[in-house]
Order: sequence, then C-alpha cells, then structure tokens
Amino acid sequence: MNVLILGGDGYLGWPTAMHLTAHGHSVAVVDNYLRRSLCREENVAPLIEVPNLHQRTALWESISGYHIPVFIGDLKKWEFVADVFRRFPPDGIIHYAEQPAAPYSMLNRQAGMLTLRNNLETTAHVIFATQQFCPNAQIVKLGTMGEYGTPNIDIEEGWLEVEHRGRQQKFLYPRQAGSLYHTTKIMDTDLLWFYVRTWGLRVTDLMQGPVYGIFTIENHGHQELYPFLNYDELFGTVLNRFIVQAVAEYPLTVYGKGGQTRGYLNIKDTLNCVRLSLEKPARKGELRIFNQFTETFSVNQLAQKVQQVARSMGFKADIASVENPRMEAEEHYYNPEHTGLMDLGLKPHYLTDEVISEMIEFANNHKEKIRSEQIYRKVRWDQNQR
Amino acid sequence: MNVLILGGDGYLGWPTAMHLTAHGHSVAVVDNYLRRSLCREENVAPLIEVPNLHQRTALWESISGYHIPVFIGDLKKWEFVADVFRRFPPDGIIHYAEQPAAPYSMLNRQAGMLTLRNNLETTAHVIFATQQFCPNAQIVKLGTMGEYGTPNIDIEEGWLEVEHRGRQQKFLYPRQAGSLYHTTKIMDTDLLWFYVRTWGLRVTDLMQGPVYGIFTIENHGHQELYPFLNYDELFGTVLNRFIVQAVAEYPLTVYGKGGQTRGYLNIKDTLNCVRLSLEKPARKGELRIFNQFTETFSVNQLAQKVQQVARSMGFKADIASVENPRMEAEEHYYNPEHTGLMDLGLKPHYLTDEVISEMIEFANNHKEKIRSEQIYRKVRWDQNQR
Repeated sequence: MNVLILGGDGYLGWPTAMHLTAHGHSVAVVDNYLRRSLCREENVAPLIEVPNLHQRTALWESISGYHIPVFIGDLKKWEFVADVFRRFPPDGIIHYAEQPAAPYSMLNRQAGMLTLRNNLETTAHVIFATQQFCPNAQIVKLGTMGEYGTPNIDIEEGWLEVEHRGRQQKFLYPRQAGSLYHTTKIMDTDLLWFYVRTWGLRVTDLMQGPVYGIFTIENHGHQELYPFLNYDELFGTVLNRFIVQAVAEYPLTVYGKGGQTRGYLNIKDTLNCVRLSLEKPARKGELRIFNQFTETFSVNQLAQKVQQVARSMGFKADIASVENPRMEAEEHYYNPEHTGLMDLGLKPHYLTDEVISEMIEFANNHKEKIRSEQIYRKVRWDQNQR
Repeated sequence: MNVLILGGDGYLGWPTAMHLTAHGHSVAVVDNYLRRSLCREENVAPLIEVPNLHQRTALWESISGYHIPVFIGDLKKWEFVADVFRRFPPDGIIHYAEQPAAPYSMLNRQAGMLTLRNNLETTAHVIFATQQFCPNAQIVKLGTMGEYGTPNIDIEEGWLEVEHRGRQQKFLYPRQAGSLYHTTKIMDTDLLWFYVRTWGLRVTDLMQGPVYGIFTIENHGHQELYPFLNYDELFGTVLNRFIVQAVAEYPLTVYGKGGQTRGYLNIKDTLNCVRLSLEKPARKGELRIFNQFTETFSVNQLAQKVQQVARSMGFKADIASVENPRMEAEEHYYNPEHTGLMDLGLKPHYLTDEVISEMIEFANNHKEKIRSEQIYRKVRWDQNQR
C-alpha cells in the first residue's frame, strides 16, 4: 500500500520507511527537520552524524532498489499538507510528526508553546487532510504509554469499562500525564477520538513505551542508515542514554529512588508493530488503541542491567542517584495490559545482555565523539524556566 | 481584589466586569474582538448593536463611578499577555477568552483550526503568565458541561472515583464531547490539570451549561450595556434563539427528536457563580471543578416553554423538528451532579414564565431588526465543509 510517513527523518520515522519498503509498501517521507533544529539550538547532538533525508533515501535506493520520495516542509502549513496528500495519495498515514521529547517540552515557555502548537496543529491537519483527500485511509498515530501516567489501578488497552451506581459506560481510559509533551499526546487522542466518532475515520493510536536500540534488519552493516542516537537529557531516552553514559565513564543517572516503572521495547518491535497495525487496519469509525511495549522495568532495573553488562566488558558503570528533576511518583503501582499487538502477530525482541552489549560496543567505537556535558543539565520540571 | 477578565467583550465577559466592580472588585478587561470579527465574516449579528469596550466602560463609569481599564490585543501573542499581566497584576484571572461557538468550530477547516489555536494557545499563555507574574492568583476558567457529553452513568462534579479489579483511583471524570469547540475545552482541562499538579497553580474550572438571558442587576435600564444577543445558528444559544424565533414567527427549530437534555442557567447565575468562585478561591495545587447550571431541560421542553408563553402573548410560535445537523444522541440518560456552587452560596434564578416573557418583550421591541435568514443555515457537523 501507499504509506505516507510524517516525521520520516526521526528516530523511528526513518527506520520505519526502510522497513516498510522492504515489506513491499510504497513509501514517501515528510519532515521539516524540526528535531535537528531543536538539537542544534540546544547544543546537543546524536552520537554519530546522521545524513539528511535526501542522502539517506539515495543511499537506501542504491542498496535496496527502493525509491522513497522526500517532502521537506512544515505540516503546520495547510498548503504544504494539501500538496503532499495530493501528490502522494496514501492508503495509510503514519503520524510521527511531533516534538518528541518530554524534557524539551518542560524546558521553558517557548519550548512548551512550540510543542503544543506543533503537535496539535499537525494532528489536526492530518485529520482534515485524511477526511478531505483519503477518507478510507488509516491514520496510525504514535501515542505514548505516558498518556496513562501511573494510576493505582491496572492500565487497560485504551478503554475502561466503568460501573458507577448501577450503570455502565465505556470510556477512553482516563489519562493524566507527567509532562507537557505527554499531555499533548492526550490531547491528540481526544482530537482523534472526536473525529473518529464524527467523521468515521479509521485510526490506530499506539501507546508506545520508551524505545531503545538503533539496529534494525534493514540498516544492518550501514552505519549511515542508523537513526539518531541521542544521549542527552533532552532528547535521549533512558536506555540509550545509560549505554552511552557507561561508555563515557559517566555514572548512570537514576532520578530519585529509581522505582519509576515503564513498558519498554526494542526499535525492531516498533517497526513490526507499526507495520502490523498498517496491514491489519482499524475499521471505519474505529479508534483502535494498542499498548505498545514488550517488557516493564524500573529505572533501577535498567541501570543494573546496563551496569552488569558494562562491567563484564571492563567499564566502571557506577550508578548515581540524582535529585529528580521531574514531578513523578518514584514508587508506584504499574500493571499495564498489552496483548493487542501480540494478537496481531508481534514476536517480541527482549532486552537481553547481548542486545545491551552490542549497543555498548557500538557506542565504544564512537567513544571519542561523546560530549559528556550534554548528558545531564538539570532541567527542572517544577518551575517555569522562561 | 484585582480581577483580570480575559474575553471581557463577550456575552459573559462584559456583564461579569460590571458585576464584579459593583461588588467592590477592581477589574480590567482584555479582548481582541474576535467574536465580533467572526460574526461579521459569517454575516450574522446580535439583535441590537453592542458598543465597543471603550464606549461601554466609559458609559459604565458615568453611571456607576467604577473605572475599568481596557486592553485590546491578542492573547495568542506573548508580548501582549506579558504586558497586560505586568500593568494589571491580578489576584484572580477569569478566562473567557475563547472562540465560544460549537457550530462555528464545525463550519470548516479554517474555523476549526482557528478554534483549536485560539483556545489552546490562550489557555497555555494564561498558565505561563500566571506562573511567571502571579503564581498565587486563581485562574477561574470557563469550561462547559459539554465536555462530559452524554454518558450512560451519572455525571459527577469533575472527578470520578473508579474501582477496577479491587483497586481504586480517582480520575478527572472521563470526557467525550460532541464538537471540536467542546473538545478544545477538554484539552484546556487536561492542560490546566497538568500544570496544577506540576506547578501548584490554583484553578477553578466551571463546567457551565448553556446560558440564557441578557438582563442583569447592573445593566438594568441601560440597553447599551446589554450583552450580545445572538439568535443565529452559529453563535446563538438555544433559549435565546427560540425567543427571537418566536417573535420572528419563525418555527422553533428542534434538531431531530429533541430529547437532547442539558443543564441551563440564567446569566445572572453565571455572574454569581464566577464571583463566588473568585471570592472563595481554590487552594494552591487544587483544580476545583463545579458543574455550573441550575436546571436541566430537553430541547423539546425548552421549545414548549417558549411556545406556551409566546402564545399567551399572541405569537404563533410553532415548533418544527428539522434534520439534526449535529452528531449527538437525541435520547439519552442525563443525570449530572451540581451541588458545589450551591454549597458556595448560589441562590438560583429559575426559568420562569416571567423570565421568558420579559425576553420576548425585549425581542419584540426590536422585531424590525431580526434577520430571519441568519437563524438556520444547516451547518452539518458530519462532514468537513472545507
């Protein structure tokens, strides 16, 4: 099918583009390089340089034979959105085109407003464009497990059947997130759910946990095709960050007590989840929600896993608890459901010692590029830093 | 106390400004006349002309002696927001500054995007400004009963205690609205709740039902001080619209079966609710939610009430069921809680025959100004009208 990947330059966007072409789909990618601009502005960078989309698509075509059209532009501008949807009429739209970092969204007012505007306006435009140009196409939207926060009851897969004073109602599972970024994802879900009910759109909303890894089947042996590997506090996710910290001999920074538990997944599983969602689409008028992760770990467990493997490879890999810059429960109940994607056929890749050691080896090969001062900047979430 | 009224030109904003000054508060009003611009663009208008804010504040000062500073500008622009908060440091902020019409938000893509951008960016700026300039001030935010939609269980006052598999969690009452406008109000609540938790703001979110009436204690005898009385499908609320329709000999348009039930209140009660919320503020770190209405009626009941009074005054006042342009349940369970404001001291004004006949009399005095073609334009909510 024709698949439009919005945010095709991103950590997940580019690997998804290669993966879907390798599985027989015709893919176009859209991006405005926002992530790159923000990293430059904040003076952080991925471990290894990542070629731009024109360079990466050319390289991928030379390797695989698959051609991927590139649209560079801002999805907040309707003229651009309409032009893309007219020139590449999609059967499926994968919507990754958001400011993706929770810590960045809490940096200051400007970063917060950028996150709010970018994420909401882009989602609204995707909805309007789908309705206008391809009402039967499925929108596959990247949500986040962070939408749910850490309630004291089991987290169901998107929906909650409530019994109250002898009557029943099924609701979107009530969401309360821990950052502005995560809150924009709640708003995205609110918006999608409204238009699914009103216009009969078909939408899959993937509540994804933090992703780790950079190796996929498609980029094997081609370092220029690896995605961004950020290890800074703003754009680096926790496991990727710990790996680089271990190599840099920078103590693994656990926030507070380290009991924060989340559902994690390997980047390979993200690609399969997105592809499976695409190939077995939601029905017209259905908002289908999957909780997209394969294993849960506390931050302490992750740090200990990385420490153990890193020490076996000769690194010091100390663990240091630092004052928690976030507003979050450091010990909490966490029991999220996640059977939907398994039912679709997902075969998980778990976080083995081998997965960790491969990543450590890669980071160590680029050790001289690590800028340790990027790692921890103490962006405090409990105050507006203007 | 010093009270900043955002959206001070509106149907509720201006009456609130007069009311609060009459109760000893120091008030400033802020508006960009968005409502007036949109009405002009859509070729609809209130029944009688409404002087602008400089004219109304001058008139009110000449009558009452109370001076109300006027700030004209766009709250989507931070420079303007910061300037207002610096020049008039508030103890309380009443946030009415939103595109207020559900049908307008469903008109087309442009109207939808305007509603989304205006409402969300303004709310975010109010949050950032409060945190930066007056972190102890209370934000009194106008929400809507429409955020809840029409669930099959009782609607509680803002929160729902959920028991699930033997464990308990209190959530924001799950919301699912019937228009984009109402959905932006859900998003407002999401955003406020996040920053209340994160920054300890004090917020009262008023889930208000449709308001009717134009007469307040303060504007008695001064027609130039009456608020907008829109009777068109886009900006006119149902009871106000039925009153004008009765006078215009235009059948009262009931959408579909007319079983849609909502909580209503008199504009006098809105003013008291807002003032009471202001004078007895939420605690730091509290999001206090009130369901703000005094009586529930179905659309059929409202039409019959207006018909009965109008007929006694010699009007024909037929009722006509028209195809429902909205996507909504026309028959549904509806049992919303609303004791919080009564506990604060609200003394309700109910919808009596006298209230209706006074309004009919007023509309009849201006009968020659009614433009019947404004009343019903069939803006269908189930399709994107581009």
